[in-house]
Amino acid sequence: MTDAVSVIRAKRDGQRLADDDIRWLFGAYARHEVADEQMSALLMAIYFNGLDGAELRTWTAAMIDSGNRLDLGSIARPTVDKHSTGGVGDKVSLILAPLVAACGAAVPQLSGRGLGHTGGTLDKLEAIPGFRAGLTPDETLAVLASAGCVICAAGSGLAPADRRLYALRDVTGTVESIPLIASSIMSKKIAEGTSALVLDVKVGTGAFMTSYDRARELAETMVALGEEHGVRTRALLTRMDVPLGRAVGNAVEVEESVQALHGNGPADLMAVTLALAREMLALAGLPHDGADPRTDPAAAIADGRALAAWEAMVRAQGGDPDAPLPRAAHTQLWPSPGTGWLTGLDALAVGTAAWRLGAGRARKEDDVSAAAGVICLAKPGDQVEAGQPLLELRADDPGRFAAALDALAGAAVVAGEPPAPASPVIEVVTPR
Amino acid sequence: MTDAVSVIRAKRDGQRLADDDIRWLFGAYARHEVADEQMSALLMAIYFNGLDGAELRTWTAAMIDSGNRLDLGSIARPTVDKHSTGGVGDKVSLILAPLVAACGAAVPQLSGRGLGHTGGTLDKLEAIPGFRAGLTPDETLAVLASAGCVICAAGSGLAPADRRLYALRDVTGTVESIPLIASSIMSKKIAEGTSALVLDVKVGTGAFMTSYDRARELAETMVALGEEHGVRTRALLTRMDVPLGRAVGNAVEVEESVQALHGNGPADLMAVTLALAREMLALAGLPHDGADPRTDPAAAIADGRALAAWEAMVRAQGGDPDAPLPRAAHTQLWPSPGTGWLTGLDALAVGTAAWRLGAGRARKEDDVSAAAGVICLAKPGDQVEAGQPLLELRADDPGRFAAALDALAGAAVVAGEPPAPASPVIEVVTPR
Repeated sequence: MTDAVSVIRAKRDGQRLADDDIRWLFGAYARHEVADEQMSALLMAIYFNGLDGAELRTWTAAMIDSGNRLDLGSIARPTVDKHSTGGVGDKVSLILAPLVAACGAAVPQLSGRGLGHTGGTLDKLEAIPGFRAGLTPDETLAVLASAGCVICAAGSGLAPADRRLYALRDVTGTVESIPLIASSIMSKKIAEGTSALVLDVKVGTGAFMTSYDRARELAETMVALGEEHGVRTRALLTRMDVPLGRAVGNAVEVEESVQALHGNGPADLMAVTLALAREMLALAGLPHDGADPRTDPAAAIADGRALAAWEAMVRAQGGDPDAPLPRAAHTQLWPSPGTGWLTGLDALAVGTAAWRLGAGRARKEDDVSAAAGVICLAKPGDQVEAGQPLLELRADDPGRFAAALDALAGAAVVAGEPPAPASPVIEVVTPR
Repeated sequence: MTDAVSVIRAKRDGQRLADDDIRWLFGAYARHEVADEQMSALLMAIYFNGLDGAELRTWTAAMIDSGNRLDLGSIARPTVDKHSTGGVGDKVSLILAPLVAACGAAVPQLSGRGLGHTGGTLDKLEAIPGFRAGLTPDETLAVLASAGCVICAAGSGLAPADRRLYALRDVTGTVESIPLIASSIMSKKIAEGTSALVLDVKVGTGAFMTSYDRARELAETMVALGEEHGVRTRALLTRMDVPLGRAVGNAVEVEESVQALHGNGPADLMAVTLALAREMLALAGLPHDGADPRTDPAAAIADGRALAAWEAMVRAQGGDPDAPLPRAAHTQLWPSPGTGWLTGLDALAVGTAAWRLGAGRARKEDDVSAAAGVICLAKPGDQVEAGQPLLELRADDPGRFAAALDALAGAAVVAGEPPAPASPVIEVVTPR
């Protein structure tokens, strides 16, 4: 038998927490016998002293066991999911889920809403008239069975301890801890019941992880955690110094995703999407050896199967894939600061501008604007002239432009020479 | 303008907190706009990253300004107080306050109750029939003016932020932080309005600080903090490896204190008491140069003035100094484990035994037994024989003896040679 102060002091003093102590902690926290002020002190101690592999495994298991697991046993196809740590213009999930479904896997993507400058997949999808992100477990399984993919909200029954812990971390300065981030992401993904998982860990100015070393450590931690819990897991480290693709917002990202499913996606977006798709298919046991177009994602786009899967999913979730998307009433152009080669377009600045235009939320209870956002009219590598529009800002309320423009100061870099080419995919992290 | 998360993150990342941020924090905490879970995360970050001298000065000032200050301007004599970090058998305040008053200073001693194995001065005094520890500010001044000393509870108006913070630290594993300890003690002592202060910082197994280095750091921190706030401050480091004197409990410590005021105090107790008294008188501008017996504490004991001051204080606070003290219904002897010289008698073990007998409280809302406690029948340096009683345990409830005896396992060390003599006073810490 233990008590909260003993657990806090042990971690504070750099000791390992015993499995029983971690199990006791989550039980007592669920019963409100451990108070939020005690948990927040422990989270800060973990921020400083970390959790080792064994502690993290038990911590994550306790979070999973705080709720239910989704049972995907009724799904005939191999299941594989993807999770992104979040980036500016990151609409990859919208393309990837139907694309991988079109190649023969089932993609049960249970997502969260966006908070801050990186946006959220569910907010984007909800720009589609009629689309429902909140499904019951039975509805989730039905959509997955019929369309081959589903993108919906992780219900309150999955890892409810994570919901409480995340809300606490958000207000107590304890978000940026690798074991806490890893357990938060992985507890929900493991509870979701997927057999395999590919992580897109973004690194750069617009990402949650701005340093390569921290991103790599997070990726390794999550890959190990997934494998320990029986989920085949890989991670891609991908660049997030400039927005991915050209659209940043909600409806504008849906629009770009549909274009990508038609085969008209921007090169950087398609490079990341196809790399993730191939990794997911390999983990699902459906690798593309070049002979069978059924498991080739490029072929699935070219022959319309991916678009068909998208439309099936949207319809199965109540949305009308043919309905016009909301358009913003007001636009404003943002000009190039010089003539030459565009070598930089800061993802954080563009993400913050889109956020201030209304595309994101500052607090969980805020609504987002479906139509607001930013379109990148040029991307690094393009030649530009001074005064030429680089960005198109869109908002429902023109009063929002001023603050958005403030965020863009210095966002574009124009130089006399083209930037060195950089692959958007840095590397793949596999289990050790 | 700042917010709680920014303040927490700044301290978490090792930055200095600006004066304005600290002031904002305490204001917002008082208005309940900063939540307990945010404050506890900040306290844990302070546990790891500390507060520098300037931060600590502002932090302490903000705690003082959260309430009222006692105005001692009406007291004609120089004011000087004493604070102990707590030890086993530490009844020094009971002797010292009347003793220093008898030598011409005024001693406004506002104290706390004990929690844990070290006991509390107010709990001891309340063993005296009729004694009232809870006085209004006006009553406090009246007792101080008439008796020259007062020992009462620090009212809820003095540094109320400390009361909330201490309760939070107690349940969140953030008690053992030198800046937090120093600001907690000093905010109350500075708010109390004393002109001078002598600190008894105990070091050893039975003390809050078990290491010399930590005790010295705490002493230096508190001395600097007092001086910065205009209170002349010194600290004595004193040993707390064995109980101080022979009695450990409440009524038994009052009894020993009265004996000491009669001139019959044990040598170690008197050495600490007289060293503190001389330091207090010097700080009050009443040093003893050997010529004037009026300011000589040894003379004040010998001629009965100190005892008279004690009786005046007890009467002024409603107590009857002549009333018989409560006596425990049950006693049990604890024998020497061997024959030879008693070289060790562990203070923590004896303190824990007294606590389990009922002399202390495990939770703030518990009552204490006035009569329970331990009497040391031998002290280190004495020659003992195997089986000879070393301790007498006293309890109202004989069911408590078993747990108390458990705490005493290994508490006495008997050796073939006498222990090396060690002065109970280690050193005096003065401002740098």
